[in-house]
Amino acid sequence: MSMTRRELLTAVGMTAGSAAMYHAMATLGHAQESTYQGRIELEGEPNGRRVLVLGAGLAGMTAALELRNAGYEVQVLEYREKAGGRCWTLRGGDDYTDIAGVTQTVEFEDGNYINPGPWRIPYNHHAILDYCKRLGVRLEPFIQKNHNAYLHRSDAFGGTPQRFRHIATDYRGHVAELLAKATDQGMLDAEVTEADRDLLVDSLREYGVLTEDNAYVASEATSDYRGYARDPGGGRDAAPTPSEPLSLNEILQSELWRWISDAESIHHQNTIFQPVGGMDMIAQAFEREVGDLITYNAKVISMLQDDAGVTVRYEDSRSGGEPVDVTGDWCVCTIPFSILGQMEHNLPSDKARVVDTMYYEGSVKFGLEFNRRFWEEDEDIYGGITYTDLPISLISYPSADYLSGGKGVLLGGYVWGANAYQFNAMAPEDAVRWAVEYGSRIHAQYPEEFSSGVCVSWHRVPWVLGCYGIWEDKARDYAATVQMGPDERIVLAGEHLSYLPAWQEGAILSALDAIQQLHDHATNG
Amino acid sequence: MSMTRRELLTAVGMTAGSAAMYHAMATLGHAQESTYQGRIELEGEPNGRRVLVLGAGLAGMTAALELRNAGYEVQVLEYREKAGGRCWTLRGGDDYTDIAGVTQTVEFEDGNYINPGPWRIPYNHHAILDYCKRLGVRLEPFIQKNHNAYLHRSDAFGGTPQRFRHIATDYRGHVAELLAKATDQGMLDAEVTEADRDLLVDSLREYGVLTEDNAYVASEATSDYRGYARDPGGGRDAAPTPSEPLSLNEILQSELWRWISDAESIHHQNTIFQPVGGMDMIAQAFEREVGDLITYNAKVISMLQDDAGVTVRYEDSRSGGEPVDVTGDWCVCTIPFSILGQMEHNLPSDKARVVDTMYYEGSVKFGLEFNRRFWEEDEDIYGGITYTDLPISLISYPSADYLSGGKGVLLGGYVWGANAYQFNAMAPEDAVRWAVEYGSRIHAQYPEEFSSGVCVSWHRVPWVLGCYGIWEDKARDYAATVQMGPDERIVLAGEHLSYLPAWQEGAILSALDAIQQLHDHATNG
Repeated sequence: MSMTRRELLTAVGMTAGSAAMYHAMATLGHAQESTYQGRIELEGEPNGRRVLVLGAGLAGMTAALELRNAGYEVQVLEYREKAGGRCWTLRGGDDYTDIAGVTQTVEFEDGNYINPGPWRIPYNHHAILDYCKRLGVRLEPFIQKNHNAYLHRSDAFGGTPQRFRHIATDYRGHVAELLAKATDQGMLDAEVTEADRDLLVDSLREYGVLTEDNAYVASEATSDYRGYARDPGGGRDAAPTPSEPLSLNEILQSELWRWISDAESIHHQNTIFQPVGGMDMIAQAFEREVGDLITYNAKVISMLQDDAGVTVRYEDSRSGGEPVDVTGDWCVCTIPFSILGQMEHNLPSDKARVVDTMYYEGSVKFGLEFNRRFWEEDEDIYGGITYTDLPISLISYPSADYLSGGKGVLLGGYVWGANAYQFNAMAPEDAVRWAVEYGSRIHAQYPEEFSSGVCVSWHRVPWVLGCYGIWEDKARDYAATVQMGPDERIVLAGEHLSYLPAWQEGAILSALDAIQQLHDHATNG
Repeated sequence: MSMTRRELLTAVGMTAGSAAMYHAMATLGHAQESTYQGRIELEGEPNGRRVLVLGAGLAGMTAALELRNAGYEVQVLEYREKAGGRCWTLRGGDDYTDIAGVTQTVEFEDGNYINPGPWRIPYNHHAILDYCKRLGVRLEPFIQKNHNAYLHRSDAFGGTPQRFRHIATDYRGHVAELLAKATDQGMLDAEVTEADRDLLVDSLREYGVLTEDNAYVASEATSDYRGYARDPGGGRDAAPTPSEPLSLNEILQSELWRWISDAESIHHQNTIFQPVGGMDMIAQAFEREVGDLITYNAKVISMLQDDAGVTVRYEDSRSGGEPVDVTGDWCVCTIPFSILGQMEHNLPSDKARVVDTMYYEGSVKFGLEFNRRFWEEDEDIYGGITYTDLPISLISYPSADYLSGGKGVLLGGYVWGANAYQFNAMAPEDAVRWAVEYGSRIHAQYPEEFSSGVCVSWHRVPWVLGCYGIWEDKARDYAATVQMGPDERIVLAGEHLSYLPAWQEGAILSALDAIQQLHDHATNG
């Protein structure tokens, strides 16, 4: 029964011409869409080898790692006692002191954690994924969409949370029904060609799980999407009971549809990742590579460039004391503009204006530990996100250690805008209590099971004073700000200098472009 | 700034009345919908303690585990040399001999595997999840939906695979546009109340990512869902380039919309699991509990019940030889009807008729190992499923070891119906070669990277001769078949005796109901 490869190729309809198509397809991967060009190659002999890197976040450590690989002598100055910046994980035993001087000590059980900053890595963030691979950071799926998590509004359904699958399936069904009927009744003859009309109706029947009469109704078919009133079983009395769909009116008026597509965005689509064990596994991996280059607890006071190079003055961020001057031929500055604006520097005036006018958005995150994983045990929610109109905005369930015993940590709120300011103004312990009270509206188990909590308000984080940078006029100022001028010795990098603000990918891509510019200057100089 | 709990409750609008709502909500978990009632409790003194269990799949091992816990003396007879049945994983070094006597030796790299049978565990399969928890089986997310995997038809888009996100986003956008415009133009005034019309249009703008004029067009907004032509970057030249949507006509005519909702079904929704390391980790966990009760390599020849008990005759499945008779007061028979129908038994005639008429569906699965994980490295596909109209039906990417080096194993086809018969009739090595050739239409890297493969055709699996049981007339026969008659000593169990056929959950739920019936008989006898 064996056959030759040629026979097989013929049998499956493949011709010589299609082989060319194959080759084209092989190049259709990420190269086409990505702005990451693979591992950076800095070749040629530079004029001036010593580089100061300010900040040991992912931008700074990327710059340090690649510049050393290219033969530069690198020194990194970092304000904190450890590297990572906003790539940060809080675990049991960790302390965190905010700008108001309030210290929180995290009381989580061993192995539990919260990422106050970035918590997700999309599949199309090629640069950070490549560094994870190179540096041996293990990744696991982050569950963004969970059909069994809730959508909740205080004024909808009497305040009772609704399962995502009910709202999403029923909305899709009703929309499909309306459009299928309108098409069948000839209302769309001007919009849809005759050749497409039957296919459109066919597709809507499948998309919306409609009857042959284009109706969205209670049935085993629709229950196979929205879930049954009683699930199918085994042995006796095992036939399932279909569930009753919500009406279009109920769904529209509830406004719970606002969250249906959140997981379909390019930033949240499957497969989206998190590092196993916490986001700072990435910071730790970088730190293993470049930790020997980092001067910790170094608070930069001034950064001055001239024809000969760059002089940076810093002091001990814990004790102050005598300032220290260090010099370099070049400098990569990843200090957030919210901090840089408070320092002495001699950046050109157009850049200085951007530094001074960039606004740092605030956000607040809560890590709440509970005595048991009730969301799994009682409510069959394994990872994913519940959305609510309460000030906490959402609750996210851990995407790891499913069905394990012991305590579990929820992201008990991720707050932006006006609500963030309310929490900013509170003592962390009060903010945590509010988060627990709000969450109780969604999970009745909260009060009884709550164990301990931590609150990070980014406007109160001393080394960044916000979450990410927002430009006064990005269209006007961006190009000049990211461009290292011909006479300059300093290049700027960080998430704020990217079109992926607030994402680690933006920080890394910015750093790679910055060191390419620096190297071009150094080799042409 | 501290406040009392009462103040907080008042502040967040909670009243005494809403506390009652909380309590109701706490009971709104899986108990309501599930047909699994939690860990089984068999109490009372039975009349006759010795039970024969036929088959050491998940149904048989569930029965054995729980009956021993309840004080019964249990013997399990298993045809194979190991337990698990269809809960089965093939790894490097494993041999498998089919009914035609053809032996395949799996050549996968250490750590790589394929699950020929069940491969997924939905979040609402409460019984098997509970056993995983009790028996210490670690679970990880199975990626069902991957926006970056492909949809493919040979006659659509010139045979070029399309990214799921393009088809799904554009279909949703066009559907939303058509319905929003029809609603705005008053075409749906008879169907949608005035109060709902504006909300419907608002919701469609959000759902479909429409402009204020209800148009679905190329833009940064739509690219934020379907993906960019060029992604946003960092540093210079970082502004993204929007991508151009496909037309509704292209999508409808391609029929790629047929697969859009597959991951939205209750059986495939998030969060869906797989055991870490292979599905048979569940079988192994059960076997650790009840392995001492199992007689392996025991091919059952006859199963006869009378007033006093049950006599089962078996022979060595490898060597034949002298048959052995064993007796029990009761018997749980989990042997698939495809096999049971070939044995001597004295089940009542109505049950015998079902045994004889049940059809076992066939399916074929391919495990294909490649020298590198090109789907990740070249195409940014991490887990998930590509659907195709080729005979292989789908390609599924491994939901583990993301971004790891070394070889990787794809599920290179999961075939049903007429196509399965074609593969049934081939030598496994030829079937594997076809799977590689078909897959080459989707992934050009196949021919160069292919390393080794295995093909399991369920109609050729000696101990089941099919994939799962299909009833001639389930509505007519089911209740009587799963019911243990008042004079009977044998009760039947397995996935075929459930409303979750082909799912492990069905097998376990069936077994739990079977042993409950057996115990009721034994304690009332």
